Amino acid sequence: MPAALYNAIQGRSNERLAALSDGIFAVAMTLLVLDIHIPSAEAIHSEAALCHALLALGPQWIAYLMSFLTLGIFWAGQQTQLNHFREGARDLTWIHLGFLFTITLMPLTTRLLAEFIEYRSALILYWLNILLPGLMLLWSWTYATHHELIKSETPPEVHGAICRRILIAQGLYAFGALLCVFSNYVSIAFIVLIQLNYAIAPRVGKRLG
Amino acid sequence: MPAALYNAIQGRSNERLAALSDGIFAVAMTLLVLDIHIPSAEAIHSEAALCHALLALGPQWIAYLMSFLTLGIFWAGQQTQLNHFREGARDLTWIHLGFLFTITLMPLTTRLLAEFIEYRSALILYWLNILLPGLMLLWSWTYATHHELIKSETPPEVHGAICRRILIAQGLYAFGALLCVFSNYVSIAFIVLIQLNYAIAPRVGKRLG
Amino acid sequence: MPAALYNAIQGRSNERLAALSDGIFAVAMTLLVLDIHIPSAEAIHSEAALCHALLALGPQWIAYLMSFLTLGIFWAGQQTQLNHFREGARDLTWIHLGFLFTITLMPLTTRLLAEFIEYRSALILYWLNILLPGLMLLWSWTYATHHELIKSETPPEVHGAICRRILIAQGLYAFGALLCVFSNYVSIAFIVLIQLNYAIAPRVGKRLG
Amino acid sequence: MPAALYNAIQGRSNERLAALSDGIFAVAMTLLVLDIHIPSAEAIHSEAALCHALLALGPQWIAYLMSFLTLGIFWAGQQTQLNHFREGARDLTWIHLGFLFTITLMPLTTRLLAEFIEYRSALILYWLNILLPGLMLLWSWTYATHHELIKSETPPEVHGAICRRILIAQGLYAFGALLCVFSNYVSIAFIVLIQLNYAIAPRVGKRLG
Repeated sequence: MPAALYNAIQGRSNERLAALSDGIFAVAMTLLVLDIHIPSAEAIHSEAALCHALLALGPQWIAYLMSFLTLGIFWAGQQTQLNHFREGARDLTWIHLGFLFTITLMPLTTRLLAEFIEYRSALILYWLNILLPGLMLLWSWTYATHHELIKSETPPEVHGAICRRILIAQGLYAFGALLCVFSNYVSIAFIVLIQLNYAIAPRVGKRLG
Repeated sequence: MPAALYNAIQGRSNERLAALSDGIFAVAMTLLVLDIHIPSAEAIHSEAALCHALLALGPQWIAYLMSFLTLGIFWAGQQTQLNHFREGARDLTWIHLGFLFTITLMPLTTRLLAEFIEYRSALILYWLNILLPGLMLLWSWTYATHHELIKSETPPEVHGAICRRILIAQGLYAFGALLCVFSNYVSIAFIVLIQLNYAIAPRVGKRLG
Repeated sequence: MPAALYNAIQGRSNERLAALSDGIFAVAMTLLVLDIHIPSAEAIHSEAALCHALLALGPQWIAYLMSFLTLGIFWAGQQTQLNHFREGARDLTWIHLGFLFTITLMPLTTRLLAEFIEYRSALILYWLNILLPGLMLLWSWTYATHHELIKSETPPEVHGAICRRILIAQGLYAFGALLCVFSNYVSIAFIVLIQLNYAIAPRVGKRLG
Repeated sequence: MPAALYNAIQGRSNERLAALSDGIFAVAMTLLVLDIHIPSAEAIHSEAALCHALLALGPQWIAYLMSFLTLGIFWAGQQTQLNHFREGARDLTWIHLGFLFTITLMPLTTRLLAEFIEYRSALILYWLNILLPGLMLLWSWTYATHHELIKSETPPEVHGAICRRILIAQGLYAFGALLCVFSNYVSIAFIVLIQLNYAIAPRVGKRLG
């Protein structure tokens, strides 16, 4: 079957998938901040007015910081998986392209949250943009496990560790999103705390250990 | 001849062509979604209005999803070819730069289709942006075959498989574009279905096989 | 001297310079086309009006095509040089960062030329943006030659070939720019022809050879 | 502990961190210049008016040149550190993501300085954007030293050289920022001179040595 042959030769290189991913994360991370609208010179007539206008951007800064953390966490998470895939695990390419699609949505949902920071629907959409890449990574890992695409030297306990990490983190994010019944700010603060925990915790643990 | 000498030493690295391509695809994929215009806070006064405004972007979402699929398919297709080129197949550099030029047009034709989703000329231009990279890849492969730039370990049946894949896919896309005589939406739905088929089919086949 | 020590350990990797360059070229190439302003849906009321509005963008398309060719030529030219540098030729890093700075100006001068396609000052500025990266590459190569940063296996005739290529090409571009005394369009047509010659000629030569 | 296991397998690849960094620097460097607003064709009616309008952008050009130099210096500085880290120095990933976050802020603070070039608060914010990445790199290096993440073949005097370089440079930048009590232009001129010194000095030293 020619189609089967074509599929057999397609997309062998984990390296190029990693390069595409790094590119997409790099563009998304840089565009986040670029989107912040600075006041125009015509509207500002004193140092105090400039400082005031920049402080008024406050909620936007929080949304952008949160999104950078989100992107960093998913970048590290995907990297962990790619490192464990056997060369030639081409079947996973499209799962990871789906994952990358959800990453390209991040600047959009961030802008939406920054513009409508007190609207619950903006927060729910943002949370969906945390949930979806998480689900894609979970799918990627379970797919790779079932189809024996993981490097043979990977210790068996790694399999469970990766799934558990995703499920626990997503559980916490979902709880954080639920807190928007009180206030979006509570919700955002909780999510940022979880993210900082994931970013900083390993290093704290190491220092103590 | 000095010019011949210069040409002999130029552009040896497939690796850098791959890196440039990954960069261009990464930027194009990320910019697609960035272009969606969210409503401004001044125009929205309730959660319901926000949800309504986002749903009204509906057709745009379809155009962006389709373009991400298109870019993913061409990224995978180009990668397949580059993997089979001998190191130093520098003659192909400019064919691939031509291919990449058509890729950089994709955010533009997508925006055009999103803005004029019911206009046939927008759809035809979009289809040309699927046809052109396909033709460039076909040119790249036939050129490489005729000038013996393919790795010697490549099995001979691969040559035909790559050409057939391009020709069949482009035939289906052309048929899909033709369906715009009925409606652009029918046309887009058909093209997205073909794309999903190419993205998902290998994996389904594998699962069954 | 600590400063001397710091400089001795700095910037050893040609690979990362290549990666940064590929990234900058990729972003610049993709942004070129993104800058074309499509008509807005409110201003267009028929298929004919849309086609007409797109055709009116004509001169812009030429400017963008020319810039893509320019970027492609400089990308290939820089790559040729980097391939011949010894690992650790770190002194060249800042010359190449200067080269990359002129590359980042390309989307700006392109936009300027597209907006003011009949203004001589726009064309002269555009030509400066072809001259400057050329001079930087010439500087890079003569610097590398004088400081023995070229790989020892490089045949001696390569040195002259690279300088000659740059000087002849820049001479032709300068002549092309001069033609703006007649008309900017003559000037642009001449420059595009030179560029197409450099892009296509090697392959034609090979076919005949 | 599963979390400890997960952290032990996460983020092993210095190579991917380098690729992400190159991507972010490439996007940031290219976006700098893109942000310069060229005059629109409607407002310009003669060559003289165009030249005049471009010259009026003067202060912006200086801000953009300075930012490109800043980005180049930090790119080279980070590269020097990454070259000396042992493979698997994953603990540093988040410190470097923090560093990259400050890099993504650079197009924003540049735009702010270009728009408000005579406002001290704009200059102070810009200086903070030089201070913060410097502090992150200092943290990265001292952290790596204390946790033995440096390659064993690194000569011991390198450790001090890197810290000294950062501290002296940041001292000079801080002094430059202080000069804004006289005028922002004095301040900017001083900072650009320091930057040019760091970019050019090694090569002058080499030539003399």
